[in-house]
Amino acid sequence: MSKVAVIMGSTSDLPVMQEAVDILKGFDIEVEVDIVSAHRTPEKMFEFGKKAHERGIAVIIAGAGGAAHLPGMVASLSPLPVIGVPVKSSNSIDGWDSVLSILQMPGGVPVATVALNGAKNAGILAAQIIGSSDKCVLDKVIAYKEGLKIKVIEGAKSINS
Amino acid sequence: MSKVAVIMGSTSDLPVMQEAVDILKGFDIEVEVDIVSAHRTPEKMFEFGKKAHERGIAVIIAGAGGAAHLPGMVASLSPLPVIGVPVKSSNSIDGWDSVLSILQMPGGVPVATVALNGAKNAGILAAQIIGSSDKCVLDKVIAYKEGLKIKVIEGAKSINS
Amino acid sequence: MSKVAVIMGSTSDLPVMQEAVDILKGFDIEVEVDIVSAHRTPEKMFEFGKKAHERGIAVIIAGAGGAAHLPGMVASLSPLPVIGVPVKSSNSIDGWDSVLSILQMPGGVPVATVALNGAKNAGILAAQIIGSSDKCVLDKVIAYKEGLKIKVIEGAKSINS
Amino acid sequence: MSKVAVIMGSTSDLPVMQEAVDILKGFDIEVEVDIVSAHRTPEKMFEFGKKAHERGIAVIIAGAGGAAHLPGMVASLSPLPVIGVPVKSSNSIDGWDSVLSILQMPGGVPVATVALNGAKNAGILAAQIIGSSDKCVLDKVIAYKEGLKIKVIEGAKSINS
Amino acid sequence: MSKVAVIMGSTSDLPVMQEAVDILKGFDIEVEVDIVSAHRTPEKMFEFGKKAHERGIAVIIAGAGGAAHLPGMVASLSPLPVIGVPVKSSNSIDGWDSVLSILQMPGGVPVATVALNGAKNAGILAAQIIGSSDKCVLDKVIAYKEGLKIKVIEGAKSINS
Amino acid sequence: MSKVAVIMGSTSDLPVMQEAVDILKGFDIEVEVDIVSAHRTPEKMFEFGKKAHERGIAVIIAGAGGAAHLPGMVASLSPLPVIGVPVKSSNSIDGWDSVLSILQMPGGVPVATVALNGAKNAGILAAQIIGSSDKCVLDKVIAYKEGLKIKVIEGAKSINS
Amino acid sequence: MSKVAVIMGSTSDLPVMQEAVDILKGFDIEVEVDIVSAHRTPEKMFEFGKKAHERGIAVIIAGAGGAAHLPGMVASLSPLPVIGVPVKSSNSIDGWDSVLSILQMPGGVPVATVALNGAKNAGILAAQIIGSSDKCVLDKVIAYKEGLKIKVIEGAKSINS
Amino acid sequence: MSKVAVIMGSTSDLPVMQEAVDILKGFDIEVEVDIVSAHRTPEKMFEFGKKAHERGIAVIIAGAGGAAHLPGMVASLSPLPVIGVPVKSSNSIDGWDSVLSILQMPGGVPVATVALNGAKNAGILAAQIIGSSDKCVLDKVIAYKEGLKIKVIEGAKSINS
Repeated sequence: MSKVAVIMGSTSDLPVMQEAVDILKGFDIEVEVDIVSAHRTPEKMFEFGKKAHERGIAVIIAGAGGAAHLPGMVASLSPLPVIGVPVKSSNSIDGWDSVLSILQMPGGVPVATVALNGAKNAGILAAQIIGSSDKCVLDKVIAYKEGLKIKVIEGAKSINS
Repeated sequence: MSKVAVIMGSTSDLPVMQEAVDILKGFDIEVEVDIVSAHRTPEKMFEFGKKAHERGIAVIIAGAGGAAHLPGMVASLSPLPVIGVPVKSSNSIDGWDSVLSILQMPGGVPVATVALNGAKNAGILAAQIIGSSDKCVLDKVIAYKEGLKIKVIEGAKSINS
Repeated sequence: MSKVAVIMGSTSDLPVMQEAVDILKGFDIEVEVDIVSAHRTPEKMFEFGKKAHERGIAVIIAGAGGAAHLPGMVASLSPLPVIGVPVKSSNSIDGWDSVLSILQMPGGVPVATVALNGAKNAGILAAQIIGSSDKCVLDKVIAYKEGLKIKVIEGAKSINS
Repeated sequence: MSKVAVIMGSTSDLPVMQEAVDILKGFDIEVEVDIVSAHRTPEKMFEFGKKAHERGIAVIIAGAGGAAHLPGMVASLSPLPVIGVPVKSSNSIDGWDSVLSILQMPGGVPVATVALNGAKNAGILAAQIIGSSDKCVLDKVIAYKEGLKIKVIEGAKSINS
Repeated sequence: MSKVAVIMGSTSDLPVMQEAVDILKGFDIEVEVDIVSAHRTPEKMFEFGKKAHERGIAVIIAGAGGAAHLPGMVASLSPLPVIGVPVKSSNSIDGWDSVLSILQMPGGVPVATVALNGAKNAGILAAQIIGSSDKCVLDKVIAYKEGLKIKVIEGAKSINS
Repeated sequence: MSKVAVIMGSTSDLPVMQEAVDILKGFDIEVEVDIVSAHRTPEKMFEFGKKAHERGIAVIIAGAGGAAHLPGMVASLSPLPVIGVPVKSSNSIDGWDSVLSILQMPGGVPVATVALNGAKNAGILAAQIIGSSDKCVLDKVIAYKEGLKIKVIEGAKSINS
Repeated sequence: MSKVAVIMGSTSDLPVMQEAVDILKGFDIEVEVDIVSAHRTPEKMFEFGKKAHERGIAVIIAGAGGAAHLPGMVASLSPLPVIGVPVKSSNSIDGWDSVLSILQMPGGVPVATVALNGAKNAGILAAQIIGSSDKCVLDKVIAYKEGLKIKVIEGAKSINS
Repeated sequence: MSKVAVIMGSTSDLPVMQEAVDILKGFDIEVEVDIVSAHRTPEKMFEFGKKAHERGIAVIIAGAGGAAHLPGMVASLSPLPVIGVPVKSSNSIDGWDSVLSILQMPGGVPVATVALNGAKNAGILAAQIIGSSDKCVLDKVIAYKEGLKIKVIEGAKSINS
């Protein structure tokens, strides 16, 4: 079955990125987690990016903060869809740096960018990508969305009772 | 075979969004194009979003400008992966409005956002999503990337000759 | 008599939005409060937007954060004046996301936007809208403004005594 | 019948603000247009703001650019709903100045802000405000929205034929 | 002797604005402090602005937050130099709102804007304005600047000892 | 009589800064114009800043673009009031660079900042500063403001005739 | 003698980057120019970055636009000082994207960032870096700065004659 | 041997700037630290900038916050490479002020700007500049980068064990 790789530039990104891992596990999708730094371990990143599609990985989720180059560089190296998670690091200029350095990729090399610290949505998007060709996962996505609805309706009841 | 829907809020978005259509045709992926306005044809959008996955569509690309609600609303209505293209419309505040109203989706409902006016990348990303489960499309993505490389190398030659 | 509906995307918006409810009650205007999420309960939102003007509602106040689509979508579905309250949610990019995704609506579908977290002003604006055709409410608005003045003058006295 | 006042800080704002006048005339709503500058004719503004509600005006639309004080000051002086139109003037810092100086009003004194250069939407919003208590205008708003829909559907046909 | 008026929109601005008062007292310049709200006490502001130059006031310092209209409106009403202090209020969008709505005044009506929360500098600037025609105050400004220098030089010694 | 110095970092700033010169001449105030670059002629700037108050100059107007250091450095060197004009140069990041590097001066060294390209207002402000101790100039400022009013009132007539 | 490499992501960056080449030639410093794209030729970039310091290159100047990863990735791969030039490309969000994705590098991997489109300054900075250990180049930098001064002084004369 | 000067506008910048000192000491590079304020001790800054290259200093690191003029002014006065560290001071507008007033230097006078609060990277960059002509320091830079890699790889192990 399809596997998702969740990588990030630093262990300090883990609290944010864990949400992607958790949501994918909730969809029973196999996840592999690693620390891969574009700036400090460029060779490891190269190796990772070049080989990911040969190892049964279907989607890559990459999170990074500041001048965040990991998602874009992995997108450069891999033919797989890459989801970028801008992480709001300390000393960030309000998160704009990671958002823009992931989102504004040049023509030819897209990164599927999600919201600032939006690792949970990155996980759901990866499930949707797998679900686009896998009826079983698609059904789980549909069920997940139904669950969201129920929670809102219960919230609505609580304030009106 | 998997089909991609390319929708946009207005015919004025077509010059930008056509790039997504063209690149997908280059990958021999079937494309369906439509005008669907979140704000002016909400019922059509509802119908589109609810049914897309039952009509053989695998990926939805949605482009819109200003307070761009089409990508996010379709993502709300469909279990498919939705790629959002922020379009820089006239009277936009430098494009920030469409970028932020597509990117910053709440937890539970992701939109895969690409760069401002990045319809070409939206097309490539859709191909990568299909390629993640379709070896034949994956090979075309790999070939496409090889082509990018050759163009740069030729450009490099031209300035050094 | 005219009624105001105060809706919001999530129970987490209630602490901000309660200010609108309170001010309207102070003007003796009937208020109905509900949780309606554009992204998680689109059908409920549709139903709400389509029917509000048939149920004696005169003004809709809608609050949401991040890529805030609720005010604009309700404005799309209803012929009533819709007041949008940008809520500064966690992971917001300083509130710019909700401000721009509510304010920058395309031609044809206005949202009356108030300040970031400005639910109190949304309530006053709703009262002014009702007051524009209801002499009794207009007089209450005039009295309210007189009250603001007195508070400032008392504050001025306190620092000069 | 209810009348709408459209005021602006300078004759140079007229090309933008005329859209509000035109749309209101399309709804058969009486409009009064004037130049009222917060900074250059403060006495006229004072007189205007204090008396508008006694002259049969139901809604005020005020447009201004740069450090735009006209909408907020008129909102301070009048109990009527005031719609603010941020105008993108020359030497504006990308329109942010007029947007923020109209939108971010303090608690107690709301301005119903529309998009940058959004005078057309200001006119529609004024019609909706009148329509909230006037069935005949409400029906015109409903018809107007129906018209928007038809235009989109025709646009959709043109690109698919 | 010349007097400086320090006014502000709300008692909540006093902790910031007090710095202007203190620095002026340090220069032995007479100060008058008052709460004058553009939005809640427009008549008082009008009276203040129209009469200030007839009461021996030479410079006006006005502080306000959010959509800050007090400095610009007073500048509209008075022929005196007006110094504007953008105050970073709660619910401000990072202070940009008060900065831009004070700084970006239209041609004809300047406000001498200082840094965000820069009330201390507003006080010094007022002293410099008075000093530009009053040798005694000019000498105090020169002495004050000498004092700044000495503090830095002592700081430099402490880190190098 | 009091003199105003208008300096700027480069001859390319002259088209903007000339407006300050013209308005001052209109007030019959003596003006001296010079090119003084903080970055290219620091010694000249030093000399200028240190001596200006000894040469009968009462107010300094300094314009510069990009990382604009001239107004702040002259404010550091002179005890006179310094008015800073942020000039929007080519390669500026929308003018934000010159605005922020002039406005956000540290405690102790104020610059009276006017709007982006606001040289005309810098001239008026200089006149107001002189007028704060010179009844004759004050009367000219009052007359100038009266003139602004008349122009608006004529504009208002033209659109209503 | 020390050599400077000037690389850029695309031939479209050449008009901006040529200024760096020209200024370096004016200092008689040997320059090598190449197109190296982080996203389209990652292997070439890798090779370039890993080997540059072994080929007699002392300083690398790298220019790129949008989500500009070239300067930061080369800084990751090379022990040499890397100067980054943010290029304002079409579809850039006002240049903020390239500025932030070059400037905001994480701890451990600096890029010496210059102004938007500041290739000329990148060339001068490279000369200064070489000059910091090469007296002959340092003298040329001193002479260059003297030349800047003379040009300003001549400009000053022209406006005062 | 080459020496690096680390200067800053105020002792309050020391906690940030100390990181530059520490990293340089780790490379066994001689460091001199001083407080030099552009705005409060302009004469000291002048003296420092004019003489630094005659005292064996090879690189200058200058940190400052707000309207940060120290790096640019020292770059104006010295032929040496100047590294600018934007410091996020209190009352800063999110750090944008110091970033832009250091980065956006005019043509002719570069400042090598690093990230907001990026003093550590300023130290590394200074080492790289010295290393560009000093094989021994270059080897230390190479070793330092190797150390970064090892730390990431250990972090990766810890999360996968």
